[in-house]
Amino acid sequence: MRAAIMRNKKLVVDEMPVPTLGPGEVLVKTLACGICGSDLHALKFADKMVDAVKRSGGGAFGMDLSRDIVMGHEFCAEVVEFGPGTQKTIKAGARVCSFPILLRGGGVEAVGYSNDNPGGYAEYMRLTEGLLLPVANGLSTEHAALTEPMAVGYHAVQMARMDKRDVPLVIGCGPVGLAVIAALKLKGAAPIIAADFSPRRRELAVQMGADVVVDPKAKSPYETWTEQAKDPSAAAGAPGFMAGLGMKPAVIFECVGVPGVIEQIMMKAPRAARIVVVGVCMESDHFEPFFGINKELNLQFVLGYTPDEFATTLHNIAEGKVPVEPLVTGKVGVEGVAQAFQDLGSPERHAKILVEPWHS
Amino acid sequence: MRAAIMRNKKLVVDEMPVPTLGPGEVLVKTLACGICGSDLHALKFADKMVDAVKRSGGGAFGMDLSRDIVMGHEFCAEVVEFGPGTQKTIKAGARVCSFPILLRGGGVEAVGYSNDNPGGYAEYMRLTEGLLLPVANGLSTEHAALTEPMAVGYHAVQMARMDKRDVPLVIGCGPVGLAVIAALKLKGAAPIIAADFSPRRRELAVQMGADVVVDPKAKSPYETWTEQAKDPSAAAGAPGFMAGLGMKPAVIFECVGVPGVIEQIMMKAPRAARIVVVGVCMESDHFEPFFGINKELNLQFVLGYTPDEFATTLHNIAEGKVPVEPLVTGKVGVEGVAQAFQDLGSPERHAKILVEPWHS
Repeated sequence: MRAAIMRNKKLVVDEMPVPTLGPGEVLVKTLACGICGSDLHALKFADKMVDAVKRSGGGAFGMDLSRDIVMGHEFCAEVVEFGPGTQKTIKAGARVCSFPILLRGGGVEAVGYSNDNPGGYAEYMRLTEGLLLPVANGLSTEHAALTEPMAVGYHAVQMARMDKRDVPLVIGCGPVGLAVIAALKLKGAAPIIAADFSPRRRELAVQMGADVVVDPKAKSPYETWTEQAKDPSAAAGAPGFMAGLGMKPAVIFECVGVPGVIEQIMMKAPRAARIVVVGVCMESDHFEPFFGINKELNLQFVLGYTPDEFATTLHNIAEGKVPVEPLVTGKVGVEGVAQAFQDLGSPERHAKILVEPWHS
Repeated sequence: MRAAIMRNKKLVVDEMPVPTLGPGEVLVKTLACGICGSDLHALKFADKMVDAVKRSGGGAFGMDLSRDIVMGHEFCAEVVEFGPGTQKTIKAGARVCSFPILLRGGGVEAVGYSNDNPGGYAEYMRLTEGLLLPVANGLSTEHAALTEPMAVGYHAVQMARMDKRDVPLVIGCGPVGLAVIAALKLKGAAPIIAADFSPRRRELAVQMGADVVVDPKAKSPYETWTEQAKDPSAAAGAPGFMAGLGMKPAVIFECVGVPGVIEQIMMKAPRAARIVVVGVCMESDHFEPFFGINKELNLQFVLGYTPDEFATTLHNIAEGKVPVEPLVTGKVGVEGVAQAFQDLGSPERHAKILVEPWHS
């Protein structure tokens, strides 16, 4: 089969064997697979990522970079063939999504960030039958493929322990920030404030549900947050620096993922803010603990989603509760993946590019 | 009056005027005042601290370092004189503790970290009458003076949102770590694991309620935690890297406050650990966000306590629920403060030194 392969830290197109099937596994044909910002980071910082995983006690991203890797974990696929010991409750020809992992030998292996389990930048993948979720008839393949990135936003908002009074601020409106905005809207948070330097991304933020968008070049997002989060009823009670100082609680979503952003948010955040780190920064970073101490900040780092959150997100998209329509801004075949990685650097042109490996 | 004064980043003993009283204020005679690790940091890093407060949006530590400052915020004092508009419900001669702030002109001012409101390293202080808490007859002055540092530990444990299943690990057994251990014991957490390089401090940790103490030179505290936190019932459920991997949840208290410790904890912490930063690091620090992301860590920075937590702590000490007895390892007059700041660098000799300004 043909695939866009990460080989020696570069993307190349080559032939490779179709995956063989273990017990409980099915072969699927990749219909569409989104390119994730983490894949861009992984290509650039693969060695740092593998090293950081190792030093922090292991996890889903253990890979041998001297061997081929086929990335792609945001997919919609079609069932083709069944391995030994499968139930076949979902039939061949059916479209499916899946949490991008395999349950193998009592453990868990990643699909995509793996030497052994090719992801959606290849024509075929093997998946665990028990994790397959059927795609409803009325739902398009390209929207179903957005389940994974939208689940990332849904999970981040779940982890934020949102309360009705919280006023969210989303820093960065790339695909991750947009998914967070959609999940906040679904949760009923209001007003949703979002900041990005790109006019196109601010436009997308509004389409996903942002109530107020800010260009940080023109105005501080924290100033805008302060205007939107005033709450005269919160001024009473505990003395000055202990209380909310007349403001509703702040929940700030870091959706940028480059060094320095966490420190900047900690510096500008209001007292007692909860900061949810959704952006994936793979470089060493610096910060001043005293910013956190002085304002009793909370930092919640998040990654991925639970199987339940993934299934709920597919359901929400099928029900039309998540406005995914504007997100897909391009489609390529395997030959176009390397160029697409370049193109995604331009926020004005692209949000999500889908790889369709069978696309000529 | 005589006081140990921070002047040009040094501690000197000098005469200064007795504080004048505004509306609702009382004059008190300082009976005993603990030397806090934050005071040691403040003397060393005063300019960084003031600068960090300014850059992160203000707070309780705004000071002009070109003017005199009398530190000391862990005090027990005796009521001497009443200012205008006071209620006099607590009589002259009574012993009191107080949240170390003043309510002045509709705002809040610090006692101690202030140019205008001398702290407990002086013979007299002015306090806000409405914040005074009477010290019960049976409670010694030196134990009452430990209310403030013990309240810091109590608050940290409240902010940790402890659950019955949580297994706490306390990194660093200086006064802050010891206060956290006492508060964990009071909360019923078990087993409490505590780590410190000093044998004397590990001994104090046991006296305060630690169940298992570790010398990090001999064995990794995280290894000890893993042995103590095994929970076979948590192994079922979500797939591998999503689940607790057979462990109870970890709550790690950072009670050291020097650069690099937060990063080290993030590297070694188990998945989904909550890290409570109680140590006050005033220098710029570095960390790898990916450690946090890969394990979905939570960092809760904490500072101080609420008025309720302060009052509860005084009550708990009076009731004998907090074993403060072993903590006081020395007493000095104002002339001894500078030397005491030096001596506190030795964990084998000292935990808490009390300043008794009337002590000759």
